Amino acid sequence: MATITIIGSGMMGSALAFPARENGNTVRLVGTPLDREIIESCKATGKHPKLPLPFPAGVEYFQIEQLSDALEGADMVIGGVSSFGVEWFSEAILPVLPDEMKVLTVTKGLMDTEDGKLITYLDIWQKKLDSIGKRLSLNAVGGPCTSYELVQHDQTEVAFCGRNTDDLAWLKSVMQTDYYHISLSQDIVGIESAVALKNGYALGVALTVGLNQRTFGLDSELHYNSQAAVFGQAVREMTKLLAFQGAPDVNNLAVGIGDLYVTVYGGRTRLIGILLGRGMGIDEAREELNGVTLESLVVAGRVAKVIRQRIATGELHAADFPLLLHIDEIITDRLPVCIPWEQFTF
Amino acid sequence: MATITIIGSGMMGSALAFPARENGNTVRLVGTPLDREIIESCKATGKHPKLPLPFPAGVEYFQIEQLSDALEGADMVIGGVSSFGVEWFSEAILPVLPDEMKVLTVTKGLMDTEDGKLITYLDIWQKKLDSIGKRLSLNAVGGPCTSYELVQHDQTEVAFCGRNTDDLAWLKSVMQTDYYHISLSQDIVGIESAVALKNGYALGVALTVGLNQRTFGLDSELHYNSQAAVFGQAVREMTKLLAFQGAPDVNNLAVGIGDLYVTVYGGRTRLIGILLGRGMGIDEAREELNGVTLESLVVAGRVAKVIRQRIATGELHAADFPLLLHIDEIITDRLPVCIPWEQFTF
Repeated sequence: MATITIIGSGMMGSALAFPARENGNTVRLVGTPLDREIIESCKATGKHPKLPLPFPAGVEYFQIEQLSDALEGADMVIGGVSSFGVEWFSEAILPVLPDEMKVLTVTKGLMDTEDGKLITYLDIWQKKLDSIGKRLSLNAVGGPCTSYELVQHDQTEVAFCGRNTDDLAWLKSVMQTDYYHISLSQDIVGIESAVALKNGYALGVALTVGLNQRTFGLDSELHYNSQAAVFGQAVREMTKLLAFQGAPDVNNLAVGIGDLYVTVYGGRTRLIGILLGRGMGIDEAREELNGVTLESLVVAGRVAKVIRQRIATGELHAADFPLLLHIDEIITDRLPVCIPWEQFTF
Repeated sequence: MATITIIGSGMMGSALAFPARENGNTVRLVGTPLDREIIESCKATGKHPKLPLPFPAGVEYFQIEQLSDALEGADMVIGGVSSFGVEWFSEAILPVLPDEMKVLTVTKGLMDTEDGKLITYLDIWQKKLDSIGKRLSLNAVGGPCTSYELVQHDQTEVAFCGRNTDDLAWLKSVMQTDYYHISLSQDIVGIESAVALKNGYALGVALTVGLNQRTFGLDSELHYNSQAAVFGQAVREMTKLLAFQGAPDVNNLAVGIGDLYVTVYGGRTRLIGILLGRGMGIDEAREELNGVTLESLVVAGRVAKVIRQRIATGELHAADFPLLLHIDEIITDRLPVCIPWEQFTF
């Protein structure tokens, strides 16, 4: 039995309380400064407002001011912030964690650098730790896992990645259940890149759904030839991007493609893709979603930016990434959807 | 403009009449001896009984006895038989085709040999041609393409494979439209293997749908974590099987994964997978489908048979194929569904 402190009570961080607590661990859920109402609601009802089931009995809830209480005797911290919380986690949380703490982050994404690299959040956090002379064990979880299905015990396969195999094995022993299956990888760049690269491509598949609604009517049946055409092209482009990241491994690709599959069907990336496919512009589509900035699209834009830099230097070739580049034209340059189907042929 | 004779009026062969005829070619559709009623129906109504739209004007229909008329002046033959028609096509059709004819087959599948190989239908047909001293240009089409969506002009990406690049380029020029996009490949084994290997895995994804209906109720929402878990494992196993086939190429994998994606959502493979997942045995599930033998399951069984032979000799490892081996246990050994989730972890 371990004591697990989850920091960030978004859907994914909160969902991990289920396998964690069902394994008999002590589980403490701490809200960020933005999560105040969520934590109040959890305290009052024992249920996360956006998750379909109540938490297992015994999960404890903390506001951010109680962080030091929540960390008392903790064996493991789960970082549950979105990619918009990466800096906050770096500045407000990492410095106050006890030395040698094992950290598992659910934050998916990549950051672009000025010199045209795509680096992981673990990279960014490790640099912060090095700069303040602190030692933590930084690990991340990637793979196809929607929070609302995890809490319902849908069978789920994810990968934990980190530097230290002993720490990874321990994290798995604490978190695995008969429905939460955990692969272990020391290829942090590979796993984190795979699950970040899928963002633009999930939007791409959703575009075809909207395009077909435009052609065949809003209530027409789904068409899968065009979805599969984009999905196949995504396999090709993601394979090349993983090679660019120095991580051309089938396990990485499989985690990324599985994550793409689940993202195609869930949530707001699909929704905005369908709106764009129907003919809406990106600004109008964002308004339909109440102006929310989707982290998936931010990450897709960062990847495209680096790809364009590397195309300019001749290190990558535009002909290898027609899908991603068009998606970037839609979300960054505000161009209308016009999928370059023939460019997908080889 | 070319004259195209399609032999076999199943859904896929017949659907290719649409891009072929819309390009202005002369198109003749010939039924096999089993297609007599279909051809009569096409003659009477101008529509294939199982396709959602009437044929383009000008398509001509022939019973098998009129084959020589249908071949008069033909530039190209499309082989439209299912994998159960491979031998008939070899014995009744290949020998009577004019020398140097360009043949494009839609038949997807692989045949297992006694010495543990998986060979393509083009291989089998080429051996037949060699034995009778006949020269034809044998080519095949693979990739994600459902017939009923193709005729509706859903955007579709496929790959033509064959030995001769000039013939491939000509076939593309005759068949491509603004909705039918054609890649060209000389890797026959790669393309044909990719689109055959997907069969067992499509059943695997469908199993999870049935399993969840058993757990959450028949009218429960679809769950995607478990579908994606199987899909990701399929990426890993198909990559290894393509390497076994000597065709470890990303284009092959992308065609196969695209085809897997479309197969997960269409037709009887999905249906039988759901029935099995709900807890039905394979025999009962087959009865539900009116005793029809699904070619996809026959092909999956052949692949599994060869994998088992190679595992026995130590050339392949059971740990690399837990999903396919379990699917084979279900369809061949009649075992109940019990997906080995933890074996998917690496």
